[in-house]
Amino acid sequence: MSTTTSARLNPLVARLAPPPVPAVQAWARGYDGARGALMDLSQAVPGYPPHPDLLAWLAEAAGSVAYAGYGPIEGEPALREAYAGHVAALYGGAVAAGNIHVTAGCNQAFFAAVMALARAGDAVLMTNPCYFNHETTLAMLGIETRYVDCAGENGFLPEPTAIADKLDGVKALALVSPNNPTGAVYRPDLIKQICDLCAARGVWLILDETYRDFLAPGAGAPHGLLAEAGWEKTLIQLYSFSKSFCIPGHRVGAVTASEAVIAEIAKVMDNLQICAPRAPQAAIARGLPALADWRAANRAEIGRRAEALRKTMAGIDGWALEAVGAYFGFVRHPFAGQSSQAVAEKLARERGVLTIPGEYFGTRLERYLRFAFANADADALRGLKERLAGFSM
Amino acid sequence: MSTTTSARLNPLVARLAPPPVPAVQAWARGYDGARGALMDLSQAVPGYPPHPDLLAWLAEAAGSVAYAGYGPIEGEPALREAYAGHVAALYGGAVAAGNIHVTAGCNQAFFAAVMALARAGDAVLMTNPCYFNHETTLAMLGIETRYVDCAGENGFLPEPTAIADKLDGVKALALVSPNNPTGAVYRPDLIKQICDLCAARGVWLILDETYRDFLAPGAGAPHGLLAEAGWEKTLIQLYSFSKSFCIPGHRVGAVTASEAVIAEIAKVMDNLQICAPRAPQAAIARGLPALADWRAANRAEIGRRAEALRKTMAGIDGWALEAVGAYFGFVRHPFAGQSSQAVAEKLARERGVLTIPGEYFGTRLERYLRFAFANADADALRGLKERLAGFSM
Repeated sequence: MSTTTSARLNPLVARLAPPPVPAVQAWARGYDGARGALMDLSQAVPGYPPHPDLLAWLAEAAGSVAYAGYGPIEGEPALREAYAGHVAALYGGAVAAGNIHVTAGCNQAFFAAVMALARAGDAVLMTNPCYFNHETTLAMLGIETRYVDCAGENGFLPEPTAIADKLDGVKALALVSPNNPTGAVYRPDLIKQICDLCAARGVWLILDETYRDFLAPGAGAPHGLLAEAGWEKTLIQLYSFSKSFCIPGHRVGAVTASEAVIAEIAKVMDNLQICAPRAPQAAIARGLPALADWRAANRAEIGRRAEALRKTMAGIDGWALEAVGAYFGFVRHPFAGQSSQAVAEKLARERGVLTIPGEYFGTRLERYLRFAFANADADALRGLKERLAGFSM
Repeated sequence: MSTTTSARLNPLVARLAPPPVPAVQAWARGYDGARGALMDLSQAVPGYPPHPDLLAWLAEAAGSVAYAGYGPIEGEPALREAYAGHVAALYGGAVAAGNIHVTAGCNQAFFAAVMALARAGDAVLMTNPCYFNHETTLAMLGIETRYVDCAGENGFLPEPTAIADKLDGVKALALVSPNNPTGAVYRPDLIKQICDLCAARGVWLILDETYRDFLAPGAGAPHGLLAEAGWEKTLIQLYSFSKSFCIPGHRVGAVTASEAVIAEIAKVMDNLQICAPRAPQAAIARGLPALADWRAANRAEIGRRAEALRKTMAGIDGWALEAVGAYFGFVRHPFAGQSSQAVAEKLARERGVLTIPGEYFGTRLERYLRFAFANADADALRGLKERLAGFSM
């Protein structure tokens, strides 16, 4: 890039590193296969295919003239209805189609929600560690990010008192539960405490629940916020259909919020996208009720994978699984003084285990790696013991 | 909305009107059908279906496990290759896959390109009239918009001297040709003159060519910029597959730019969307070469519709088609002193002719209506004579 070109770019974007997942995936090309097939624990994708019925419905809708034209900005009425019903049943709350905005994935849900609330110069509070795309979204919009530290000793959960100390002058608090990158699951009472703090201070709570369908089987509702009157004055809930239905390539997510906030998000979405892709919306509207058992079985399978990861890591000297939940384990490596990037890169090249360095998710995280374990089955995860044995920096 | 909620929203978004197309479409619900079926000339959509082969390819890709997962941020390699080849052939230029970024439609292409170049407080130069979503995109990002007036007497083309006077301190000039809303087609020599001005002043030229496939049959390349060495230092070209392939519901567009700019756009797109929906990308990669004849036939059909509109409007007293091209005619109504919104609304309710008021596209445009005539066939367009006869305010 000539200095002439670079000087004419938006510095808020230019100073950001390239997207991390492709950069990390490039390391895997240096792996020679000596330890067996590559274990890709980098991107948060499920390691099993979508249900064949869903593929058939996707094909049916995509091949239909009915979904070739523009659709409503806020989403297909059938999906808004079906998803509102699903949310209302899961949380026991009063949620209607008018509270739903369909987006092209959950990154877009976050982007649009943030734009509806905050402009350049405003501040948003997040956790450290945090999901890197939330951080870069705010950075490129010129929105100041502030952080609440979540310590490993506390299971990477935020302390409500620490949050209370930082709510002054912020437009929103952005949380992810089950958490990306740590896997930490925020308890319903903790979420309620935090939401009450936000409500009292007039701060929006943006709660990204992309991974909620992979809470431990038998867990109840992730929280009770939507069952309380007035939830919509504080809460903006984000969700992704990509993980539950194994269709990230089709790009469908959703926002649940007050009708007033949905109207603002619609203005943003009209500019970002006009409407989310329609055919997958039609397919998901059918799949939401019809594939509930299949999703429950996957939830149990991801639970088995989490358990396999837990047991395996407990038997590897020097390595510690400090948090685990939904799709992710947050792993402390044994190499003090080494950067997590150096460890992750060597692990990828020499042992064929692809993970994301902790430092990509915030500060003082050099000792951590994120294992997106959902992408590997329990057998493969048990093989980590052999992969990590004798690994040194 | 409680004042509490509205005070906590982003004022840059809150002060924008709701998206115009749905608002205009609501007027049609007041039409009683007395003059025949509703003529929807509001949204820029083609009034014929996609090719059956394309529908089959869309279905095939959407139903395939291969496209269910995440894809490359920049787009499917097959589509980037196919589209780069298409652009290189059309413009006689050196354009490779690395110069292409696939987006979820052309609104997103504009949004991502602008974010790659400009931050809140920067300025972008546009035309008056302009495409409203370009204006609202800039407004919600806090980017200052400046305007070059395009007069009806000049066929709504911008004057290079007027542009030269306004290039100081702007990051980019955004143009649309063939134009939305006016239909004005910028001649290759005018585009070159403007691009040279931008190059000399270090200003990016964002050229939205969403409607280029509907230039009059037999017209050559829309311009020669891509055939010139160094085009990528100034030009960022935007395109949409929605119109040519009649699939706006599938959301696929593209940016053509330097590799350095593509890398910046990829950072934005990773946050906006991760990747454009994959299945339609795969289908379009097949359709680009295979459906060239079908697209040429549609181009001829749209040309016939333009001709029908031209002839019909010439025979209606007091109404004047001041510009026409590609999808749009910009029509001067006879009612001095009336707002274009009042005229458009009454025309929709009483005569079942749905158009977009000129004032939605800029200032001093109260005398105009945009007719997106591509949505009606030549017979229906000839019927405008009867629909407009005797219409009064």
